[in-house]
Amino acid sequence: MQKTEWFEEIYNDSVGLKIKIKNKIFSQKSDFQQVDIYETFSHGKMLTHDGLVMATEKDEHIYHEMIAHVPLFTHPNPKKVLIIGGGDGGTLREVLRHESIEKCVMVEIDPLVVKACEEHLNQTSCEFKNPKAQIIIDDGVKFAKNCKETFDVAIIDSSDPIGPATPLFNENFYKDIFNLLNTDGIVTSQCESPYYHFEMQKVLLSILNKKFKKTHIYNYSNQSYPSGYWSFSYASKGLCPFKDLNIQKVKKFSFNFKYYNEDIHRGAFMLPNFMRESLVEFLSPLPEVKF
Amino acid sequence: MQKTEWFEEIYNDSVGLKIKIKNKIFSQKSDFQQVDIYETFSHGKMLTHDGLVMATEKDEHIYHEMIAHVPLFTHPNPKKVLIIGGGDGGTLREVLRHESIEKCVMVEIDPLVVKACEEHLNQTSCEFKNPKAQIIIDDGVKFAKNCKETFDVAIIDSSDPIGPATPLFNENFYKDIFNLLNTDGIVTSQCESPYYHFEMQKVLLSILNKKFKKTHIYNYSNQSYPSGYWSFSYASKGLCPFKDLNIQKVKKFSFNFKYYNEDIHRGAFMLPNFMRESLVEFLSPLPEVKF
Repeated sequence: MQKTEWFEEIYNDSVGLKIKIKNKIFSQKSDFQQVDIYETFSHGKMLTHDGLVMATEKDEHIYHEMIAHVPLFTHPNPKKVLIIGGGDGGTLREVLRHESIEKCVMVEIDPLVVKACEEHLNQTSCEFKNPKAQIIIDDGVKFAKNCKETFDVAIIDSSDPIGPATPLFNENFYKDIFNLLNTDGIVTSQCESPYYHFEMQKVLLSILNKKFKKTHIYNYSNQSYPSGYWSFSYASKGLCPFKDLNIQKVKKFSFNFKYYNEDIHRGAFMLPNFMRESLVEFLSPLPEVKF
Repeated sequence: MQKTEWFEEIYNDSVGLKIKIKNKIFSQKSDFQQVDIYETFSHGKMLTHDGLVMATEKDEHIYHEMIAHVPLFTHPNPKKVLIIGGGDGGTLREVLRHESIEKCVMVEIDPLVVKACEEHLNQTSCEFKNPKAQIIIDDGVKFAKNCKETFDVAIIDSSDPIGPATPLFNENFYKDIFNLLNTDGIVTSQCESPYYHFEMQKVLLSILNKKFKKTHIYNYSNQSYPSGYWSFSYASKGLCPFKDLNIQKVKKFSFNFKYYNEDIHRGAFMLPNFMRESLVEFLSPLPEVKF
Protein backbone atom coordinates (compact mmCIF):
# COMPACT_ATOMS: atom_id res chain seq x y z
CA MET A 1 0.00 0.00 0.00
CA GLN A 2 1.25 3.48 -0.89
CA LYS A 3 2.30 5.71 1.99
CA THR A 4 -0.06 8.68 2.41
CA GLU A 5 1.64 11.93 1.49
CA TRP A 6 1.00 15.34 2.97
CA PHE A 7 1.88 18.71 1.51
CA GLU A 8 3.19 21.06 4.19
CA GLU A 9 3.63 24.82 4.16
CA ILE A 10 5.44 26.22 7.19
CA TYR A 11 5.38 29.95 8.04
CA ASN A 12 8.04 31.60 10.19
CA ASP A 13 9.38 28.16 11.11
CA SER A 14 6.62 27.95 13.75
CA VAL A 15 3.14 27.34 12.30
CA GLY A 16 2.00 25.41 9.28
CA LEU A 17 -0.72 24.08 7.04
CA LYS A 18 -0.96 20.41 6.05
CA ILE A 19 -3.01 19.15 3.11
CA LYS A 20 -3.33 15.46 2.23
CA ILE A 21 -2.24 14.70 -1.31
CA LYS A 22 -3.70 12.13 -3.72
CA ASN A 23 -0.95 12.75 -6.27
CA LYS A 24 1.25 15.35 -7.91
CA ILE A 25 0.04 16.04 -11.43
CA PHE A 26 2.53 18.70 -12.54
CA SER A 27 6.02 19.60 -11.39
CA GLN A 28 8.50 21.76 -13.27
CA LYS A 29 11.00 24.52 -12.57
CA SER A 30 10.92 27.76 -14.57
CA ASP A 31 13.48 30.58 -14.62
CA PHE A 32 11.47 32.13 -11.79
CA GLN A 33 10.21 29.40 -9.51
CA GLN A 34 9.22 25.80 -8.90
CA VAL A 35 5.63 25.26 -10.13
CA ASP A 36 3.62 22.27 -8.85
CA ILE A 37 0.01 21.17 -9.12
CA TYR A 38 -1.34 18.53 -6.74
CA GLU A 39 -4.60 16.61 -6.52
CA THR A 40 -5.70 16.86 -2.87
CA PHE A 41 -8.40 15.07 -0.85
CA SER A 42 -9.99 18.20 0.61
CA HIS A 43 -9.23 21.14 -1.72
CA GLY A 44 -9.44 19.71 -5.24
CA LYS A 45 -6.43 20.61 -7.37
CA MET A 46 -3.88 22.90 -5.75
CA LEU A 47 -1.29 25.16 -7.40
CA THR A 48 1.92 25.99 -5.52
CA HIS A 49 4.91 28.23 -6.33
CA ASP A 50 8.15 27.33 -4.54
CA GLY A 51 6.14 25.25 -2.08
CA LEU A 52 3.65 28.03 -1.17
CA VAL A 53 -0.08 27.53 -1.86
CA MET A 54 -1.28 29.94 -4.54
CA ALA A 55 -4.76 28.61 -5.32
CA THR A 56 -6.96 25.58 -4.68
CA GLU A 57 -10.10 24.58 -6.54
CA LYS A 58 -12.02 24.64 -3.26
CA ASP A 59 -11.47 28.27 -2.34
CA GLU A 60 -9.83 30.17 -5.23
CA HIS A 61 -13.21 31.73 -6.07
CA ILE A 62 -13.08 33.78 -2.86
CA TYR A 63 -9.73 35.38 -3.67
CA HIS A 64 -10.64 36.00 -7.31
CA GLU A 65 -14.16 37.32 -6.64
CA MET A 66 -12.88 39.73 -4.00
CA ILE A 67 -9.89 41.11 -5.95
CA ALA A 68 -11.99 41.63 -9.12
CA HIS A 69 -15.57 42.55 -8.19
CA VAL A 70 -14.82 45.13 -5.50
CA PRO A 71 -13.27 47.51 -8.10
CA LEU A 72 -15.51 46.41 -10.99
CA PHE A 73 -18.79 47.11 -9.15
CA THR A 74 -17.40 50.40 -7.79
CA HIS A 75 -16.29 51.77 -11.18
CA PRO A 76 -19.41 53.04 -13.03
CA ASN A 77 -18.46 51.63 -16.43
CA PRO A 78 -15.26 49.57 -16.58
CA LYS A 79 -14.25 48.79 -20.16
CA LYS A 80 -10.52 48.12 -20.05
CA VAL A 81 -8.82 46.12 -17.29
CA LEU A 82 -5.14 45.36 -16.73
CA ILE A 83 -4.11 42.35 -14.64
CA ILE A 84 -0.48 42.14 -13.52
CA GLY A 85 0.33 38.56 -12.52
CA GLY A 86 -2.71 36.32 -12.12
CA GLY A 87 -1.15 33.55 -14.22
CA ASP A 88 -3.68 30.93 -13.10
CA GLY A 89 -6.42 32.88 -14.90
CA GLY A 90 -8.93 33.10 -12.03
CA THR A 91 -8.93 36.91 -11.94
CA LEU A 92 -9.32 37.07 -15.73
CA ARG A 93 -12.34 34.74 -15.48
CA GLU A 94 -14.04 37.00 -12.92
CA VAL A 95 -13.25 40.21 -14.87
CA LEU A 96 -14.80 38.80 -18.05
CA ARG A 97 -18.09 38.08 -16.24
CA HIS A 98 -18.77 41.86 -16.53
CA GLU A 99 -20.49 42.63 -19.83
CA SER A 100 -19.08 46.16 -19.98
CA ILE A 101 -15.52 44.81 -20.38
CA GLU A 102 -14.16 45.28 -23.91
CA LYS A 103 -10.58 44.20 -23.27
CA CYS A 104 -8.65 42.58 -20.45
CA VAL A 105 -4.85 42.49 -20.69
CA MET A 106 -3.11 39.98 -18.41
CA VAL A 107 0.66 40.34 -17.98
CA GLU A 108 2.25 37.28 -16.37
CA ILE A 109 6.01 37.02 -15.97
CA ASP A 110 6.21 33.22 -15.83
CA PRO A 111 5.02 31.29 -18.91
CA LEU A 112 5.25 28.04 -16.97
CA VAL A 113 2.39 29.10 -14.63
CA VAL A 114 0.16 29.83 -17.63
CA LYS A 115 1.12 26.52 -19.29
CA ALA A 116 0.62 24.45 -16.11
CA CYS A 117 -2.82 25.98 -15.44
CA GLU A 118 -3.87 25.72 -19.09
CA GLU A 119 -3.11 22.02 -19.01
CA HIS A 120 -4.25 21.07 -15.52
CA LEU A 121 -6.33 23.82 -13.85
CA ASN A 122 -9.24 24.51 -16.17
CA GLN A 123 -11.36 25.91 -13.35
CA THR A 124 -9.20 29.06 -13.37
CA SER A 125 -7.67 29.05 -16.87
CA CYS A 126 -11.01 28.67 -18.70
CA GLU A 127 -10.97 32.18 -20.27
CA PHE A 128 -7.44 32.25 -21.73
CA LYS A 129 -8.93 31.88 -25.24
CA ASN A 130 -11.68 34.48 -24.74
CA PRO A 131 -11.40 37.03 -27.60
CA LYS A 132 -11.56 39.90 -25.09
CA ALA A 133 -8.49 38.50 -23.27
CA GLN A 134 -4.95 39.38 -24.25
CA ILE A 135 -2.32 37.25 -22.48
CA ILE A 136 1.16 38.81 -22.47
CA ILE A 137 4.19 36.98 -21.09
CA ASP A 138 6.33 39.80 -19.74
CA ASP A 139 7.66 41.47 -16.64
CA GLY A 140 4.73 43.45 -15.19
CA VAL A 141 7.02 46.20 -13.91
CA LYS A 142 8.54 46.72 -17.36
CA PHE A 143 5.11 46.49 -19.00
CA ALA A 144 3.64 49.16 -16.70
CA LYS A 145 6.66 51.45 -17.27
CA ASN A 146 6.42 51.29 -21.06
CA CYS A 147 2.64 51.04 -21.39
CA LYS A 148 1.02 53.51 -23.79
CA GLU A 149 -2.55 52.29 -23.23
CA THR A 150 -4.83 53.42 -20.42
CA PHE A 151 -7.15 51.32 -18.26
CA ASP A 152 -10.17 51.80 -15.99
CA VAL A 153 -9.14 49.16 -13.46
CA ALA A 154 -5.76 47.57 -12.68
CA ILE A 155 -5.52 44.41 -10.59
CA ILE A 156 -2.16 43.47 -9.11
CA ASP A 157 -2.64 39.75 -8.61
CA SER A 158 0.85 38.96 -7.40
CA SER A 159 2.35 36.18 -5.36
CA ASP A 160 4.19 36.93 -2.10
CA PRO A 161 6.95 39.59 -2.10
CA ILE A 162 9.73 37.01 -1.71
CA GLY A 163 10.00 35.63 -5.27
CA PRO A 164 9.51 37.10 -8.74
CA ALA A 165 6.74 39.39 -7.40
CA THR A 166 9.06 41.43 -5.13
CA PRO A 167 9.30 44.47 -7.50
CA LEU A 168 5.48 44.71 -7.50
CA PHE A 169 5.57 46.03 -3.93
CA ASN A 170 7.46 49.15 -5.00
CA GLU A 171 6.82 52.90 -5.29
CA ASN A 172 8.00 53.31 -8.88
CA PHE A 173 5.74 50.51 -10.02
CA TYR A 174 2.69 52.21 -8.50
CA LYS A 175 3.65 55.54 -10.11
CA ASP A 176 3.47 53.75 -13.46
CA ILE A 177 0.15 52.13 -12.52
CA PHE A 178 -1.21 55.55 -11.52
CA ASN A 179 -0.18 56.96 -14.90
CA LEU A 180 -1.83 54.22 -16.92
CA LEU A 181 -5.16 54.54 -15.09
CA ASN A 182 -7.97 56.73 -16.48
CA THR A 183 -9.72 59.40 -14.39
CA ASP A 184 -11.55 57.57 -11.59
CA GLY A 185 -9.29 54.55 -12.18
CA ILE A 186 -9.03 51.94 -9.43
CA VAL A 187 -6.22 49.56 -8.54
CA THR A 188 -6.62 46.59 -6.18
CA SER A 189 -3.61 44.54 -5.05
CA GLN A 190 -2.90 41.33 -3.22
CA CYS A 191 -1.87 42.66 0.19
CA GLU A 192 -0.88 39.67 2.35
CA SER A 193 -2.13 38.86 5.87
CA PRO A 194 -2.71 41.33 8.70
CA TYR A 195 -1.44 38.66 11.11
CA TYR A 196 1.79 37.76 9.33
CA HIS A 197 2.74 40.68 7.08
CA PHE A 198 1.51 43.81 8.83
CA GLU A 199 4.68 45.83 8.11
CA MET A 200 4.42 44.97 4.41
CA GLN A 201 0.79 46.12 4.43
CA LYS A 202 1.89 49.48 5.86
CA VAL A 203 4.56 49.85 3.17
CA LEU A 204 2.11 49.17 0.34
CA LEU A 205 -0.61 51.42 1.78
CA SER A 206 1.83 54.27 2.34
CA ILE A 207 2.98 54.01 -1.31
CA LEU A 208 -0.64 54.09 -2.52
CA ASN A 209 -1.60 56.87 -0.14
CA LYS A 210 1.05 59.19 -1.58
CA LYS A 211 -0.36 58.98 -5.11
CA PHE A 212 -4.08 58.18 -4.90
CA LYS A 213 -6.99 60.23 -3.56
CA LYS A 214 -8.65 57.21 -1.92
CA THR A 215 -6.72 54.43 -0.20
CA HIS A 216 -8.29 51.52 1.66
CA ILE A 217 -7.66 47.95 2.71
CA TYR A 218 -10.25 45.17 2.83
CA ASN A 219 -10.22 41.68 4.27
CA TYR A 220 -11.60 38.30 3.36
CA SER A 221 -11.29 34.69 4.42
CA ASN A 222 -8.77 32.43 2.69
CA GLN A 223 -8.69 28.85 3.95
CA SER A 224 -5.38 27.89 2.39
CA TYR A 225 -3.26 30.96 3.24
CA PRO A 226 -1.51 31.49 6.61
CA SER A 227 -4.00 32.38 9.39
CA GLY A 228 -7.00 32.28 7.02
CA TYR A 229 -7.30 36.10 7.17
CA TRP A 230 -6.06 37.95 4.12
CA SER A 231 -6.25 41.44 2.57
CA PHE A 232 -6.43 43.39 -0.65
CA SER A 233 -5.50 47.04 -0.96
CA TYR A 234 -7.82 49.44 -2.82
CA ALA A 235 -6.72 52.75 -4.31
CA SER A 236 -8.58 55.09 -6.64
CA LYS A 237 -8.15 58.48 -8.25
CA GLY A 238 -11.62 59.39 -6.99
CA LEU A 239 -14.06 56.53 -6.40
CA CYS A 240 -15.17 55.49 -2.91
CA PRO A 241 -15.82 51.75 -2.41
CA PHE A 242 -18.87 52.56 -0.26
CA LYS A 243 -20.52 55.58 -1.90
CA ASP A 244 -19.76 54.57 -5.47
CA LEU A 245 -20.64 50.88 -5.13
CA ASN A 246 -23.42 50.17 -7.62
CA ILE A 247 -25.68 48.08 -5.39
CA GLN A 248 -28.43 47.64 -7.98
CA LYS A 249 -25.90 46.31 -10.49
CA VAL A 250 -24.60 43.77 -7.96
CA LYS A 251 -28.12 42.61 -7.13
CA LYS A 252 -29.11 42.24 -10.78
CA PHE A 253 -25.85 40.64 -11.91
CA SER A 254 -26.41 37.56 -14.03
CA PHE A 255 -23.69 35.45 -12.41
CA ASN A 256 -24.34 34.02 -8.99
CA PHE A 257 -21.18 34.51 -6.96
CA LYS A 258 -20.31 32.04 -4.24
CA TYR A 259 -18.74 34.60 -1.90
CA TYR A 260 -19.08 38.17 -3.20
CA ASN A 261 -22.22 40.27 -2.73
CA GLU A 262 -23.01 43.89 -1.81
CA ASP A 263 -22.98 43.06 1.91
CA ILE A 264 -19.61 41.31 1.96
CA HIS A 265 -18.21 44.11 -0.24
CA ARG A 266 -18.97 46.64 2.49
CA GLY A 267 -18.30 44.37 5.46
CA ALA A 268 -14.80 43.65 4.12
CA PHE A 269 -13.78 47.30 4.61
CA MET A 270 -14.91 47.30 8.25
CA LEU A 271 -11.62 46.68 9.98
CA PRO A 272 -10.78 45.18 13.36
CA ASN A 273 -9.29 47.60 15.87
CA PHE A 274 -5.66 46.56 15.51
CA MET A 275 -5.82 47.32 11.77
CA ARG A 276 -7.98 50.47 11.98
CA GLU A 277 -5.75 52.07 14.60
CA SER A 278 -2.38 51.13 13.16
CA LEU A 279 -3.22 51.95 9.56
CA VAL A 280 -5.24 55.15 10.14
CA GLU A 281 -2.54 57.45 8.71
CA PHE A 282 -2.57 55.59 5.38
CA LEU A 283 -6.34 55.16 4.98
CA SER A 284 -8.96 57.54 3.61
CA PRO A 285 -12.00 58.00 5.87
CA LEU A 286 -15.08 55.99 4.89
CA PRO A 287 -18.60 57.41 5.28
CA GLU A 288 -20.38 56.45 8.50
CA VAL A 289 -22.75 53.50 8.14
CA LYS A 290 -26.45 54.20 8.83
CA PHE A 291 -29.54 52.00 8.95
CA MET B 1 19.98 18.21 21.05
CA GLN B 2 16.27 17.74 21.65
CA LYS B 3 14.13 16.91 18.62
CA THR B 4 11.74 19.74 17.71
CA GLU B 5 8.15 18.80 18.42
CA TRP B 6 5.09 19.91 16.54
CA PHE B 7 1.48 19.84 17.70
CA GLU B 8 -0.85 18.71 14.90
CA GLU B 9 -4.60 19.00 14.58
CA ILE B 10 -6.05 17.16 11.58
CA TYR B 11 -9.60 17.84 10.32
CA ASN B 12 -11.54 15.30 8.26
CA ASP B 13 -8.37 13.26 7.83
CA SER B 14 -7.40 15.63 5.01
CA VAL B 15 -6.24 19.06 6.21
CA GLY B 16 -4.39 20.14 9.31
CA LEU B 17 -2.76 22.80 11.42
CA LYS B 18 0.78 22.44 12.78
CA ILE B 19 2.16 24.53 15.64
CA LYS B 20 5.74 24.26 16.87
CA ILE B 21 5.96 23.44 20.56
CA LYS B 22 8.53 24.65 23.08
CA ASN B 23 7.18 22.37 25.79
CA LYS B 24 4.06 20.87 27.34
CA ILE B 25 3.30 22.57 30.64
CA PHE B 26 0.10 20.75 31.66
CA SER B 27 -1.34 17.37 30.74
CA GLN B 28 -4.10 15.57 32.59
CA LYS B 29 -7.22 13.56 31.81
CA SER B 30 -10.56 14.46 33.42
CA ASP B 31 -13.82 12.48 33.41
CA PHE B 32 -14.68 14.42 30.26
CA GLN B 33 -11.55 14.91 28.19
CA GLN B 34 -7.79 15.14 27.90
CA VAL B 35 -6.68 18.68 28.85
CA ASP B 36 -3.26 19.94 27.71
CA ILE B 37 -1.49 23.29 27.79
CA TYR B 38 1.56 23.86 25.60
CA GLU B 39 4.09 26.65 25.30
CA THR B 40 4.39 27.39 21.56
CA PHE B 41 6.85 29.47 19.53
CA SER B 42 4.24 31.45 17.59
CA HIS B 43 1.00 31.50 19.64
CA GLY B 44 2.13 31.84 23.26
CA LYS B 45 0.46 29.30 25.55
CA MET B 46 -2.12 27.05 23.92
CA LEU B 47 -4.99 25.12 25.54
CA THR B 48 -6.25 21.93 23.86
CA HIS B 49 -9.10 19.51 24.70
CA ASP B 50 -8.71 16.00 23.31
CA GLY B 51 -6.06 17.30 20.91
CA LEU B 52 -8.20 20.16 19.51
CA VAL B 53 -7.04 23.78 19.90
CA MET B 54 -9.40 25.70 22.20
CA ALA B 55 -7.49 28.94 22.81
CA THR B 56 -4.05 30.43 22.30
CA GLU B 57 -2.62 33.52 23.96
CA LYS B 58 -2.00 35.05 20.54
CA ASP B 59 -5.58 35.09 19.29
CA GLU B 60 -8.01 34.15 22.09
CA HIS B 61 -8.96 37.83 22.44
CA ILE B 62 -10.69 37.75 19.05
CA TYR B 63 -12.99 34.86 19.98
CA HIS B 64 -13.72 36.26 23.44
CA GLU B 65 -14.26 39.87 22.33
CA MET B 66 -16.64 38.79 19.58
CA ILE B 67 -18.74 36.34 21.61
CA ALA B 68 -19.12 38.83 24.51
CA HIS B 69 -19.23 42.39 23.17
CA VAL B 70 -21.66 41.85 20.30
CA PRO B 71 -24.52 41.07 22.76
CA LEU B 72 -23.26 43.37 25.53
CA PHE B 73 -23.14 46.49 23.35
CA THR B 74 -26.51 45.61 21.78
CA HIS B 75 -28.36 45.15 25.08
CA PRO B 76 -29.15 48.62 26.50
CA ASN B 77 -28.27 47.81 30.11
CA PRO B 78 -26.89 44.31 30.75
CA LYS B 79 -26.66 43.56 34.48
CA LYS B 80 -26.72 39.78 34.76
CA VAL B 81 -24.86 37.46 32.39
CA LEU B 82 -24.79 33.66 32.25
CA ILE B 83 -21.87 31.87 30.59
CA ILE B 84 -22.28 28.15 29.84
CA GLY B 85 -18.85 26.60 29.31
CA GLY B 86 -16.03 29.11 28.87
CA GLY B 87 -13.81 27.29 31.40
CA ASP B 88 -10.66 29.14 30.36
CA GLY B 89 -12.19 32.40 31.68
CA GLY B 90 -11.66 34.57 28.59
CA THR B 91 -15.37 35.27 28.08
CA LEU B 92 -15.79 36.09 31.78
CA ARG B 93 -12.89 38.56 31.52
CA GLU B 94 -14.54 40.37 28.58
CA VAL B 95 -18.00 40.42 30.24
CA LEU B 96 -16.60 42.01 33.41
CA ARG B 97 -15.10 44.90 31.41
CA HIS B 98 -18.67 46.28 31.22
CA GLU B 99 -19.39 48.48 34.25
CA SER B 100 -23.12 47.77 34.14
CA ILE B 101 -22.54 44.09 35.00
CA GLU B 102 -23.58 43.23 38.57
CA LYS B 103 -23.17 39.47 38.37
CA CYS B 104 -21.71 36.97 35.93
CA VAL B 105 -22.39 33.28 36.49
CA MET B 106 -20.08 30.87 34.66
CA VAL B 107 -21.14 27.20 34.54
CA GLU B 108 -18.31 24.91 33.42
CA ILE B 109 -18.76 21.14 33.38
CA ASP B 110 -15.08 20.21 33.67
CA PRO B 111 -13.23 21.36 36.82
CA LEU B 112 -9.93 20.31 35.28
CA VAL B 113 -10.20 23.05 32.60
CA VAL B 114 -10.74 25.69 35.30
CA LYS B 115 -7.85 24.32 37.36
CA ALA B 116 -5.45 24.07 34.41
CA CYS B 117 -6.20 27.64 33.29
CA GLU B 118 -6.07 29.02 36.83
CA GLU B 119 -2.59 27.56 37.22
CA HIS B 120 -1.14 28.14 33.74
CA LEU B 121 -3.26 30.50 31.62
CA ASN B 122 -3.57 33.71 33.59
CA GLN B 123 -4.28 35.75 30.44
CA THR B 124 -7.77 34.22 30.32
CA SER B 125 -8.38 33.11 33.91
CA CYS B 126 -7.53 36.49 35.48
CA GLU B 127 -11.08 37.28 36.66
CA PHE B 128 -11.99 34.01 38.41
CA LYS B 129 -11.63 35.77 41.79
CA ASN B 130 -13.59 38.89 40.78
CA PRO B 131 -16.40 39.39 43.36
CA LYS B 132 -18.95 39.81 40.54
CA ALA B 133 -18.02 36.36 39.16
CA GLN B 134 -19.67 33.17 40.36
CA ILE B 135 -17.94 30.02 39.08
CA ILE B 136 -20.15 26.91 39.20
CA ILE B 137 -18.82 23.47 38.30
CA ASP B 138 -21.89 21.75 36.86
CA ASP B 139 -23.49 20.41 33.72
CA GLY B 140 -24.71 23.50 31.81
CA VAL B 141 -27.74 21.63 30.44
CA LYS B 142 -28.86 20.61 33.94
CA PHE B 143 -28.11 24.10 35.28
CA ALA B 144 -30.23 25.80 32.59
CA LYS B 145 -33.10 23.35 33.16
CA ASN B 146 -33.25 23.96 36.91
CA CYS B 147 -32.28 27.63 36.94
CA LYS B 148 -34.60 29.94 38.90
CA GLU B 149 -32.64 33.13 38.17
CA THR B 150 -33.05 35.25 35.06
CA PHE B 151 -30.35 36.90 32.94
CA ASP B 152 -30.02 39.69 30.38
CA VAL B 153 -27.43 37.92 28.25
CA ALA B 154 -26.47 34.24 27.94
CA ILE B 155 -23.24 33.19 26.23
CA ILE B 156 -22.85 29.56 25.17
CA ASP B 157 -19.08 29.29 25.04
CA SER B 158 -18.89 25.60 24.23
CA SER B 159 -16.28 23.40 22.64
CA ASP B 160 -17.09 21.39 19.50
CA PRO B 161 -20.22 19.19 19.45
CA ILE B 162 -18.23 15.96 19.59
CA GLY B 163 -17.22 15.83 23.28
CA PRO B 164 -18.89 16.95 26.51
CA ALA B 165 -20.46 19.95 24.70
CA THR B 166 -22.70 17.81 22.44
CA PRO B 167 -25.93 18.40 24.48
CA LEU B 168 -25.42 22.16 24.12
CA PHE B 169 -26.39 21.92 20.44
CA ASN B 170 -29.92 20.79 21.34
CA GLU B 171 -33.48 22.14 21.16
CA ASN B 172 -34.44 21.45 24.77
CA PHE B 173 -31.37 23.26 26.02
CA TYR B 174 -32.29 26.39 24.06
CA LYS B 175 -35.88 26.26 25.38
CA ASP B 176 -34.39 26.48 28.86
CA ILE B 177 -32.07 29.29 27.80
CA PHE B 178 -35.05 31.17 26.33
CA ASN B 179 -36.92 30.78 29.62
CA LEU B 180 -34.10 32.12 31.78
CA LEU B 181 -33.61 35.23 29.63
CA ASN B 182 -35.32 38.51 30.53
CA THR B 183 -37.39 40.49 28.01
CA ASP B 184 -34.98 41.63 25.27
CA GLY B 185 -32.55 38.94 26.38
CA ILE B 186 -29.80 37.90 23.97
CA VAL B 187 -27.96 34.61 23.59
CA THR B 188 -24.76 34.19 21.54
CA SER B 189 -23.25 30.76 20.91
CA GLN B 190 -20.09 29.25 19.50
CA CYS B 191 -21.29 28.13 16.08
CA GLU B 192 -18.38 26.36 14.35
CA SER B 193 -17.01 27.05 10.84
CA PRO B 194 -19.07 27.79 7.72
CA TYR B 195 -16.51 25.78 5.74
CA TYR B 196 -16.42 22.64 7.88
CA HIS B 197 -19.66 22.52 9.88
CA PHE B 198 -22.31 24.11 7.71
CA GLU B 199 -24.97 21.47 8.48
CA MET B 200 -24.41 21.96 12.20
CA GLN B 201 -24.82 25.72 11.74
CA LYS B 202 -28.17 25.12 10.06
CA VAL B 203 -29.31 22.87 12.91
CA LEU B 204 -28.41 25.45 15.57
CA LEU B 205 -29.95 28.37 13.67
CA SER B 206 -33.17 26.45 13.03
CA ILE B 207 -33.45 25.67 16.76
CA LEU B 208 -32.92 29.35 17.64
CA ASN B 209 -35.23 30.57 14.88
CA LYS B 210 -38.16 28.56 16.31
CA LYS B 211 -38.00 30.28 19.70
CA PHE B 212 -36.46 33.73 19.25
CA LYS B 213 -37.78 36.80 17.44
CA LYS B 214 -34.36 37.69 16.00
CA THR B 215 -31.87 35.10 14.76
CA HIS B 216 -28.55 35.90 13.10
CA ILE B 217 -25.09 34.50 12.49
CA TYR B 218 -21.86 36.49 12.45
CA ASN B 219 -18.33 35.65 11.40
CA TYR B 220 -14.85 36.47 12.56
CA SER B 221 -11.29 35.38 11.92
CA ASN B 222 -9.73 32.67 14.09
CA GLN B 223 -6.14 31.80 13.24
CA SER B 224 -6.00 28.56 15.19
CA TYR B 225 -9.32 26.97 14.22
CA PRO B 226 -9.89 24.99 10.97
CA SER B 227 -10.01 27.29 7.90
CA GLY B 228 -9.55 30.45 9.98
CA TYR B 229 -13.20 31.45 9.40
CA TRP B 230 -15.53 30.92 12.33
CA SER B 231 -19.02 31.93 13.47
CA PHE B 232 -21.18 32.81 16.43
CA SER B 233 -24.96 32.63 16.42
CA TYR B 234 -27.00 35.53 17.80
CA ALA B 235 -30.59 35.24 19.02
CA SER B 236 -32.72 37.74 20.90
CA LYS B 237 -36.25 38.13 22.17
CA GLY B 238 -36.34 41.54 20.51
CA LEU B 239 -33.03 43.34 20.03
CA CYS B 240 -31.48 43.86 16.58
CA PRO B 241 -27.66 43.73 16.44
CA PHE B 242 -27.66 46.64 13.94
CA LYS B 243 -30.44 48.98 15.10
CA ASP B 244 -29.91 48.43 18.81
CA LEU B 245 -26.11 48.57 18.79
CA ASN B 246 -25.08 51.43 21.09
CA ILE B 247 -22.39 52.99 18.90
CA GLN B 248 -21.65 55.88 21.27
CA LYS B 249 -21.08 53.44 24.12
CA VAL B 250 -18.63 51.41 21.99
CA LYS B 251 -16.73 54.55 21.00
CA LYS B 252 -16.51 55.84 24.58
CA PHE B 253 -15.69 52.48 26.16
CA SER B 254 -12.77 52.66 28.53
CA PHE B 255 -11.09 49.46 27.40
CA ASN B 256 -9.25 49.46 24.10
CA PHE B 257 -10.18 46.24 22.32
CA LYS B 258 -7.70 44.63 19.98
CA TYR B 259 -10.29 43.32 17.51
CA TYR B 260 -13.82 44.46 18.39
CA ASN B 261 -15.22 47.87 17.41
CA GLU B 262 -18.51 49.23 16.05
CA ASP B 263 -17.38 48.63 12.46
CA ILE B 264 -16.33 45.01 12.89
CA HIS B 265 -19.54 44.41 14.90
CA ARG B 266 -21.61 45.31 11.85
CA GLY B 267 -19.26 43.91 9.22
CA ALA B 268 -19.36 40.52 10.93
CA PHE B 269 -23.09 40.15 10.14
CA MET B 270 -22.54 40.86 6.44
CA LEU B 271 -22.42 37.33 5.08
CA PRO B 272 -20.82 35.88 1.97
CA ASN B 273 -23.25 34.60 -0.64
CA PHE B 274 -22.99 30.89 0.16
CA MET B 275 -24.04 31.60 3.75
CA ARG B 276 -26.65 34.27 3.02
CA GLU B 277 -28.43 32.11 0.45
CA SER B 278 -28.31 28.79 2.28
CA LEU B 279 -29.26 30.16 5.68
CA VAL B 280 -31.92 32.67 4.59
CA GLU B 281 -34.84 30.64 5.98
CA PHE B 282 -33.32 30.67 9.48
CA LEU B 283 -32.19 34.30 9.60
CA SER B 284 -34.11 37.47 10.45
CA PRO B 285 -33.77 40.27 7.91
CA LEU B 286 -31.29 43.01 8.81
CA PRO B 287 -31.95 46.66 7.97
CA GLU B 288 -30.38 47.88 4.72
CA VAL B 289 -27.07 49.69 5.17
CA LYS B 290 -26.96 53.34 4.06
CA PHE B 291 -24.18 55.93 3.88
